[in-house]
Amino acid sequence: MGNIAGPEIERLIQLLARLPGLGPRSARRAALHLIRKREELLGPLADAMRVARDRIVTCSVCGNIDTSDPCSLCADPRRDGTTLVVVETVGDLWALERAGVLNARYHVLGGALSPLDGVGPDELNIGALVGRVAEGGVKEVILAVNATVDGQTTAHYITELLSPYKVKCTRLAHGVPVGGELDYLDEGTLAAALKSRIDL
Amino acid sequence: MGNIAGPEIERLIQLLARLPGLGPRSARRAALHLIRKREELLGPLADAMRVARDRIVTCSVCGNIDTSDPCSLCADPRRDGTTLVVVETVGDLWALERAGVLNARYHVLGGALSPLDGVGPDELNIGALVGRVAEGGVKEVILAVNATVDGQTTAHYITELLSPYKVKCTRLAHGVPVGGELDYLDEGTLAAALKSRIDL
Repeated sequence: MGNIAGPEIERLIQLLARLPGLGPRSARRAALHLIRKREELLGPLADAMRVARDRIVTCSVCGNIDTSDPCSLCADPRRDGTTLVVVETVGDLWALERAGVLNARYHVLGGALSPLDGVGPDELNIGALVGRVAEGGVKEVILAVNATVDGQTTAHYITELLSPYKVKCTRLAHGVPVGGELDYLDEGTLAAALKSRIDL
Repeated sequence: MGNIAGPEIERLIQLLARLPGLGPRSARRAALHLIRKREELLGPLADAMRVARDRIVTCSVCGNIDTSDPCSLCADPRRDGTTLVVVETVGDLWALERAGVLNARYHVLGGALSPLDGVGPDELNIGALVGRVAEGGVKEVILAVNATVDGQTTAHYITELLSPYKVKCTRLAHGVPVGGELDYLDEGTLAAALKSRIDL
């Protein structure tokens, strides 16, 4: 391709193809779309990426990303510091914030324990979590990790690690997703939903 | 979201969501991926976009995009100037170049005639095409437009327009895609493939 449209376009396509959700073909389509919308999209996106690269930092308290450290969530005095929600990734934090039912503080692990992939406790932001709990003030740690083997392993490991402290560890409920149809659900979810059934 | 992670990240997500193939959810995933890979991906992509915005121009001869005008295809003396391949978009030009069977010159229309969408001959790069043919030297015009109603309308319009000149107008063959299974093909394609059957 380099001899068709020049190395600049080829480089743009190659970098776009490294975004999750874009393959070589959709990266080419995206590049053409960007070049067509040079003024409204390509320029602003280049600027937004430059700003993000230069200004976004990881919060030293909770592991969230923001343009300030501590992040705006940690700096917000209205947040309830007695509840700490432990998540695997910043994307999970965003998902919980979109649900909008929590006014708690967060702690981002940066992943889940995964012996097969060589991810041990030292690779995760776990030491800082224990430090925050040891400081006192936290009454409940909600382990909002994924309902995967790695996520659950991580939850149990952290529960064990926090057992010396006077803190309650909880996990998210399992059950039927809101709007979900029973016919499409796996047996594990249905069993969990039956076991945790609620009186009407 | 603005109060979770700051307006800079929100703006990056909103701009990414305007790329074809990315919705709000995948734009968030892409933004997080970019921020995680700040040095290897976010920075280089910002730079590549800036270079593309500043240096890419539309070729005044054929309508292709490149960092030079005339584009590298028009400037290449080894290209056969007696054959002109007319395509709707630069993406179509790239697709034909990837097929690698042509050593011809191109002409990019910038779309197809579409009365319903208000796209008439004046909105397309047709005048320049007639000019190139009128200059002489072109023996065949391959109308490599899409096999859609708009594409075929455009092909017929251009054929009509070029009838005063001594130039042969051709179109791409219809038929079974290589590797395609008959069971999945529409009737129109099958009928065309039968009609244009080849002696073995």
